[in-house]
Amino acid sequence: MKRRDFLRGATVAGVASAASALAAPALAQGVRELKMVTTWPKNFPGLGTGAQRLADSITAMSEGKLKVTLYSAGELVPALESFDAVSGGTADMYHGAEYYWQGKNKAFNFFAAVPFGLTANEMDAWVNYGGGQQLWDELSAKFNIKPFAAGNTGVQMAGWYNKEIKSVEDYKGLKIRMPGLGGEVLRRLGAAAVTLPGGEIFPALQSGAIDATEWVGPWNDLAFGFYKVTKYYYWPGFHEPGSTLSCGMNKGVWDSLDAGQKSIIQVACAAENNRMYSEFNAKNGDALVTLVEKHGVKLRQMPNDVMMKIGEISGEVVRETGQSDPLAQKVYDSFIKFRKNAIAYEKISSQAYANARLLPFKY
Amino acid sequence: MKRRDFLRGATVAGVASAASALAAPALAQGVRELKMVTTWPKNFPGLGTGAQRLADSITAMSEGKLKVTLYSAGELVPALESFDAVSGGTADMYHGAEYYWQGKNKAFNFFAAVPFGLTANEMDAWVNYGGGQQLWDELSAKFNIKPFAAGNTGVQMAGWYNKEIKSVEDYKGLKIRMPGLGGEVLRRLGAAAVTLPGGEIFPALQSGAIDATEWVGPWNDLAFGFYKVTKYYYWPGFHEPGSTLSCGMNKGVWDSLDAGQKSIIQVACAAENNRMYSEFNAKNGDALVTLVEKHGVKLRQMPNDVMMKIGEISGEVVRETGQSDPLAQKVYDSFIKFRKNAIAYEKISSQAYANARLLPFKY
Repeated sequence: MKRRDFLRGATVAGVASAASALAAPALAQGVRELKMVTTWPKNFPGLGTGAQRLADSITAMSEGKLKVTLYSAGELVPALESFDAVSGGTADMYHGAEYYWQGKNKAFNFFAAVPFGLTANEMDAWVNYGGGQQLWDELSAKFNIKPFAAGNTGVQMAGWYNKEIKSVEDYKGLKIRMPGLGGEVLRRLGAAAVTLPGGEIFPALQSGAIDATEWVGPWNDLAFGFYKVTKYYYWPGFHEPGSTLSCGMNKGVWDSLDAGQKSIIQVACAAENNRMYSEFNAKNGDALVTLVEKHGVKLRQMPNDVMMKIGEISGEVVRETGQSDPLAQKVYDSFIKFRKNAIAYEKISSQAYANARLLPFKY
Repeated sequence: MKRRDFLRGATVAGVASAASALAAPALAQGVRELKMVTTWPKNFPGLGTGAQRLADSITAMSEGKLKVTLYSAGELVPALESFDAVSGGTADMYHGAEYYWQGKNKAFNFFAAVPFGLTANEMDAWVNYGGGQQLWDELSAKFNIKPFAAGNTGVQMAGWYNKEIKSVEDYKGLKIRMPGLGGEVLRRLGAAAVTLPGGEIFPALQSGAIDATEWVGPWNDLAFGFYKVTKYYYWPGFHEPGSTLSCGMNKGVWDSLDAGQKSIIQVACAAENNRMYSEFNAKNGDALVTLVEKHGVKLRQMPNDVMMKIGEISGEVVRETGQSDPLAQKVYDSFIKFRKNAIAYEKISSQAYANARLLPFKY
């Protein structure tokens, strides 16, 4: 999914009055108030709750000296204006996903998810120890922001389809909800890929306005009830293989923090990176059982020849994303080089282990 | 590996004199000193450096009010006495791996690694959101300790062999260095599984005293130079699919911390869980390229029928581990139930994605 789609309907009441009270971080009796805007509805499972946990961690660890107040989408600024709000100092930090800012520079896509790109673990490895953070810093600094990885959904599902996909021909004319670079890939296969806000997907699927949709994974998809309309649930997703969420801080605010406060922000983000992904994994595992055993959902694997074609087109789309700008090209080069070694290692490590664990032995 | 094997040779000079100066956490001018003992040599790549990063994070985030001093293996107490040292209050916290304490209760194995058990991501999911932490708390509380996950190596390699493994018969009489539950599995296949300290593996492999060895993964194995003696490097490892490292705190010390300090400890551990695993992934990817391209190492996949037999025996060994004690049984039951759903979800998510990414398309 692109989570912004939620936010179209989010309330904007009170924005003007709240905004007028904004200024640089408030300082009162040693307490520094930090406004965190997010691109999520309040307490949306996994994403909104993760942002809240991050905010609360920072407040708790600083013994309240950094008091982070979370504003969900539309409370202070509309979701997609979070980046500009932090860049300009209206808010101090955001929690969101970097591909929302691709209008500023397409390089931002690489720090959230690109089709057939890096998994959650690989993203962490690239950002933390593969040169990714330095490039991200360079990119975000152009907008007065200091960025951190702060959460992950893991690989998303391919989505819900009202008919089986047996060949690449089945995408011709298929009306599917898939935004972003993934949608662009499917358009090149002849699909009518559209973007719909989260709340509009279910009725569109029900009325036949769309034939298929992706959203996130079993946990979030179960909540939306897509299984009531269609039974074919396809795996694996190619479009978002390890969607990284992020926290961006106004660079002036960041630079003004002392070393201990900087540690608190950094460590809280790294912790949320671990916690959110583990929550998605646990809840997805449980929700999958419910979908299949209780709701009769039929799991289907995307045929290999379809994935091959999608993989090739994904390569084109991602390459063009790199070619859009000199810095995007630098990010692309680093990402692709890391991806090559990561695939070779993944092949002989957790992937091979998971494959061996599926062999039919009694355990 | 079992990392304790390092520590046999670690210096114990100064232990007696240092121990005599120990007491409850020192309190001076609002600064609380916390002694962290570890089971690792100082700055051992990944593990020792991770423990140091954890200690430094806690010190930095608390603005020095919790001043964590790290003692590597043998500096304050021998590595394997870390648990008792923290339990009894000689030290305030440890960083190690829970299977080192299996002599206390075999249930500890489940919070580090068991053959054909959970991967790194699945361990995090089970501990954080699948009931694992509550069971771990219950187990460790019996020993006056509050435990946290604080690092992961990921799935380990199957190891280095001086001849190819073509069938399960090839394990008969094979002299292989593999400690712990994994070693027990191979013994039941007829192997002579032995435990050797890290520093003794290379000479043993060179002299022919052993035919094979496992250690950790490409990054750590490259450093030990096994490729100079034998060229067959087997994947995937079954014995430690997601070795979780841990931080255990003296429960009295933990209970005496205020809410902010507790948050600092918890969040620092969760962050290290993310950072260490990402470091292993990044460095393993690079080291694998060096091993293959520079040192001519031959990667070999364990045959499926060998893995099937190993899987079946692993099930027996892990089941017996659960049967050793009522609480171990409770932990086993929770672990196995979680494992079932985790495998079903993994099959359609990151595993399926990684498999699709290996299809021969141009990217």
